[in-house]
Amino acid sequence: MNGISDQTLRDVLRAIYQQRTTSRALITQATGLSTGIISQALQLLLRSGMVLKVGELESNGGRRREVLTLNPDAVYFIGVDLAGHCVRLALAGFGGDLRFRWEVEFEPDGSLDLHKLFSGIERVANSLNAQQRSRLQAVGISYPGVMDQQGRLDAVNLGWRQFPLMAELQKARNARGFEWLPMFIEPEVQGAVRAEQWLGRAQHHRYGINISCDRGIGAGIFLDGKVVEGWRNMAGELGHVTIDPEADDRCNCGKRGCLEAVATSRNIVRQYLDKTGKREGSTASVRFAEVVERARKGEQPAVEVVQRACRAWGLALSHVVNLLNPEIIILGGDLVGVEDIFVPLIREELRRHCLPELSECLEIEVSSLGLDVRLKAAASLAFQKCLADPSLLKKMCSPVLLSLRTDADIKAQVSVEE
Amino acid sequence: MNGISDQTLRDVLRAIYQQRTTSRALITQATGLSTGIISQALQLLLRSGMVLKVGELESNGGRRREVLTLNPDAVYFIGVDLAGHCVRLALAGFGGDLRFRWEVEFEPDGSLDLHKLFSGIERVANSLNAQQRSRLQAVGISYPGVMDQQGRLDAVNLGWRQFPLMAELQKARNARGFEWLPMFIEPEVQGAVRAEQWLGRAQHHRYGINISCDRGIGAGIFLDGKVVEGWRNMAGELGHVTIDPEADDRCNCGKRGCLEAVATSRNIVRQYLDKTGKREGSTASVRFAEVVERARKGEQPAVEVVQRACRAWGLALSHVVNLLNPEIIILGGDLVGVEDIFVPLIREELRRHCLPELSECLEIEVSSLGLDVRLKAAASLAFQKCLADPSLLKKMCSPVLLSLRTDADIKAQVSVEE
Repeated sequence: MNGISDQTLRDVLRAIYQQRTTSRALITQATGLSTGIISQALQLLLRSGMVLKVGELESNGGRRREVLTLNPDAVYFIGVDLAGHCVRLALAGFGGDLRFRWEVEFEPDGSLDLHKLFSGIERVANSLNAQQRSRLQAVGISYPGVMDQQGRLDAVNLGWRQFPLMAELQKARNARGFEWLPMFIEPEVQGAVRAEQWLGRAQHHRYGINISCDRGIGAGIFLDGKVVEGWRNMAGELGHVTIDPEADDRCNCGKRGCLEAVATSRNIVRQYLDKTGKREGSTASVRFAEVVERARKGEQPAVEVVQRACRAWGLALSHVVNLLNPEIIILGGDLVGVEDIFVPLIREELRRHCLPELSECLEIEVSSLGLDVRLKAAASLAFQKCLADPSLLKKMCSPVLLSLRTDADIKAQVSVEE
Repeated sequence: MNGISDQTLRDVLRAIYQQRTTSRALITQATGLSTGIISQALQLLLRSGMVLKVGELESNGGRRREVLTLNPDAVYFIGVDLAGHCVRLALAGFGGDLRFRWEVEFEPDGSLDLHKLFSGIERVANSLNAQQRSRLQAVGISYPGVMDQQGRLDAVNLGWRQFPLMAELQKARNARGFEWLPMFIEPEVQGAVRAEQWLGRAQHHRYGINISCDRGIGAGIFLDGKVVEGWRNMAGELGHVTIDPEADDRCNCGKRGCLEAVATSRNIVRQYLDKTGKREGSTASVRFAEVVERARKGEQPAVEVVQRACRAWGLALSHVVNLLNPEIIILGGDLVGVEDIFVPLIREELRRHCLPELSECLEIEVSSLGLDVRLKAAASLAFQKCLADPSLLKKMCSPVLLSLRTDADIKAQVSVEE
């Protein structure tokens, strides 16, 4: 590709993707490539409209430094989140920004029909005009459950048992005329860790645990950068560690005293309602955020249930810390937005239950990827796969998007150095 | 080496080492090499006296199959175990069998002087005659504590803080005239796992946890075959997970309710003495084996303390199982010999606290390497390092040990096939 190696393109695109807005100096720092090679690659990427110059910074020496970013409309990806109870889809621009969204509901007790998924993909693709659609590169899919070595997926919430996901996807794709659209799949736990490593809190961490908390609790443990899968791909069941063998709280799994039964948002609400007798028909009458707000204000029953939940989180995580010596714990899902009250309490428990040399330097952060982490992970999976595959990389980089160019962009081309 | 590649020699020697006594068919199975290549390698190894023919088996087709083993006196290694309170050394034969042993005591509050270690090595070397000493290949050392990335070791029991172990070893080695003797070091937790993988229960397992229980509790977690080290090499602190936040049992680490405070042999004895009021001066008056024997006979206080300890083991291990989905738990140290009563109770707790799909297929075994696991690990480290290094491999395989040959051995040479 004009004498620029695929690897150089990969490194430069990855650096801009991760840094969002950047400069030549920062790309040099991130890639370790020579400035000459980076200039060559940027020349190509600016000329083809993949990268935009979006501003200038006055540098010390008086020379102006360009501010660069990926052109969000240069190429598109679709991210799919097969979280239980509905299928969520989103169109993502080149930089990973989520645009058009679509949700496909399905019968709670039935099993997901892949044709429904493709109806969603069609819907998202139809939000693009023909020219834009030709720049749709790939679909990334984040799936729950456990896949065996033969590629058969058990996912209770989707109603799938021993479901050959990849094979069935390809079949439905061909039946629906989407042969031209590459599709990639990834377990949701791994996707969430990869997204934190690429875009979020784990960019500079190799040992950690990434928690997602909504109806259930998911935990992606990563060691030396790699997600722990376990013997039969079932590692990470943090939600079902026993916190209190004597507790009455019954978990969905049938056990008692699981972390999940005590410390998820809906179980915190449940305990609050039990304690206050405020139950009015359904747990939906009080929201989690409200219970936490009441705890912030010092309302005793709210304080007690939040403290109990945080003690449970702290005890469960103390096992992880003593066993695995991570450098960071990332809290996601419903724990985003309550860190002001949760993190100090969790930290206090960790200090109580961990060897000090293990807990003292430990970072505890909330995810910066927000509630869309699985959609963002799925879209970034598609991007990473296109980067990695030489022919997809070529396709992604080749179209010269003259029609999209703005004046700023054309000026940027003129100012290309060397 | 006579047209036989280093890798072939490695594979064949490793197979015989691991199988102890073996046959051509089993070596073929273990290595995947062709019978022709194996015959060539065995011809060399039999002729040089490295491998002995120690018997014959009648095979189905009427043809006799040789029984082969490593010549225990072909080469020697020294294993060193820097377990706290004393330094243990052993001479190991080629097959890993431990011979001459030596212990070096040192002041409990002082720090270990490496010259004491070399006095021990001298003592072990002096147990050999000059010809044997020339076949001493290497020393393997198993060390406790935590080493940082600069190679500085913190090991409380040895009185070492920030001690540059490898550099100091080399200095002392040269000062004591042992430049000719290669030395290799390894953390004891990793060594124990490697020994189980090479010689013990983990030969066919890639995901597991290897427990050692004596004064403290050590845990070597291995995932995809590799020992988990953690961010700062401090993973595996299973002994200090909190089992019961409300417990009175105070641990050496200062916390309360640690697994170690409830479930090590000496703490089981302590609880038994507390319960029965039998304390007569010191805990040494009743031994662990005696308490377990009383529990076997149904003596109530003994049953209660053993059950409490097993519940603690089970709860602690249930976290490991839910988090990491291992296929095997190997119990070592003081837990060897009490498995008849401990394993069923631990299994019961695991069933109580784990998702069934994680606990049902899990194996729980006691170590087959006995109490000398660290010495055996250290000796096998030396052997493995000699296998891996081309010049050490050459030295290990080259001497033709005519003087050692027995009649059986000479007959074996004659019967070499092909």
